[in-house]
Amino acid sequence: MTQNIYDNPEFFAGYSRLDRSVEGLDGAAEWPALRAMLPDLRDVAVLDLGCGFGWFCVWARANGASRVLGLDVSDNMLARARSATEDKAISYVMADLEEFDLPAAAFGLAYSSLALHYIENLDRLLDTVRGALVPGGDLVFSVEHPIYTAPTKPGWVTDSEGRHTWPVDGYLVEGPRRTDWLTKGVVKRHRTIGHYVNALLRHGFAISHVEEWGPDQAQIAARPEWAVERHRPMFLLVSARRVDTSPVAS
Amino acid sequence: MTQNIYDNPEFFAGYSRLDRSVEGLDGAAEWPALRAMLPDLRDVAVLDLGCGFGWFCVWARANGASRVLGLDVSDNMLARARSATEDKAISYVMADLEEFDLPAAAFGLAYSSLALHYIENLDRLLDTVRGALVPGGDLVFSVEHPIYTAPTKPGWVTDSEGRHTWPVDGYLVEGPRRTDWLTKGVVKRHRTIGHYVNALLRHGFAISHVEEWGPDQAQIAARPEWAVERHRPMFLLVSARRVDTSPVAS
Repeated sequence: MTQNIYDNPEFFAGYSRLDRSVEGLDGAAEWPALRAMLPDLRDVAVLDLGCGFGWFCVWARANGASRVLGLDVSDNMLARARSATEDKAISYVMADLEEFDLPAAAFGLAYSSLALHYIENLDRLLDTVRGALVPGGDLVFSVEHPIYTAPTKPGWVTDSEGRHTWPVDGYLVEGPRRTDWLTKGVVKRHRTIGHYVNALLRHGFAISHVEEWGPDQAQIAARPEWAVERHRPMFLLVSARRVDTSPVAS
Repeated sequence: MTQNIYDNPEFFAGYSRLDRSVEGLDGAAEWPALRAMLPDLRDVAVLDLGCGFGWFCVWARANGASRVLGLDVSDNMLARARSATEDKAISYVMADLEEFDLPAAAFGLAYSSLALHYIENLDRLLDTVRGALVPGGDLVFSVEHPIYTAPTKPGWVTDSEGRHTWPVDGYLVEGPRRTDWLTKGVVKRHRTIGHYVNALLRHGFAISHVEEWGPDQAQIAARPEWAVERHRPMFLLVSARRVDTSPVAS
């Protein structure tokens, strides 16, 4: 089973104070870029993998989704998500994303924000998600960027000339990374971009868009302290589509 | 026009001494990975963008290609390529990859090794290549990896604990990078992986495979000094296919 760090009291308390927890989707700097990758949600059944407090589930319903299923491993987060809505078309279900099952061809969109880098068995998850999507359905997700997850000791270093640099090591050495973020010993899975892309292709998806995210100029104008984030991408955003016909012209 | 660094005498002399120039394809550590991404070449017309000394053109013919067109901006390289073969089915033509034109639907494979990171107008090139491929034809190419091209001052740094790191800055700042490699002032174009992928998608390609290349364990066993190359990928290898039908099931 995946490490359920979100139900660690120290982690949960810290996570609950982040902008993205207090302000919801608009508190997440990468949300406008991720939102731009979403299909039209009107009358679409939506799956949210790692739904947390349910902000996206509520947003999807407000934007026309016919129903939304939010899955999360954290009791604490699901309890708060359930308390925040009485919408009968939103269901929150506790699930370990290493082991869950889903009905076939039930969703038009599978969405996941910053959850898949906790998952060890990505192949199983993609196989499950593909089967749960209708043909032509989309998977849109964000993860921490591999430049961000790779280093043994992640962090900025200012060199002798005052340049901010992000020293990378171990980029091609995939596997677990233990970091201290909000609490000690958070385990994330480092994978290359190529790994994500090729896994999607292997599981019957076509790639629709890949974005290595950093703040744009308008965001930096509003938050000048974010300028350093242009030096290395923090997030990787990917959209892919379930394909059932050969993409090759005959 | 693209900087033609290959006809700079100092650069050409240095380049001519590299393993990949002396030994051909087998002198290029990434060749086995790139070769594995190629389609069956039997009776396929092949285009090589930035053919250099023509090693790949000759290899393609030996592996069944019906004819091969090698394009390069360097007089010196083409002269040597021409002198190395009398095969009438191989043509070497001088061309600036910023400005060339090609017949429509004439090739089954377009190949390019370590040339596209010199090109400023990638969109024009992809548009030209797509038109020159038959429907279902493949584009397989390598470029320097953006982690490799991004830094203002590329190079390894050993930290206080003896770790080899590759300090990254400017990853999201795309554009020219002036470096000293074989001679001074070589200009390469830094682009993110997302940029390459999205440009391909926009120009009517489907992504087939993305590999962030470093030496494998067998290569490191043979050349232990390459172990450091696992810390950051040196090359990006991509294959894509010209699509003419919607990849979405109806």
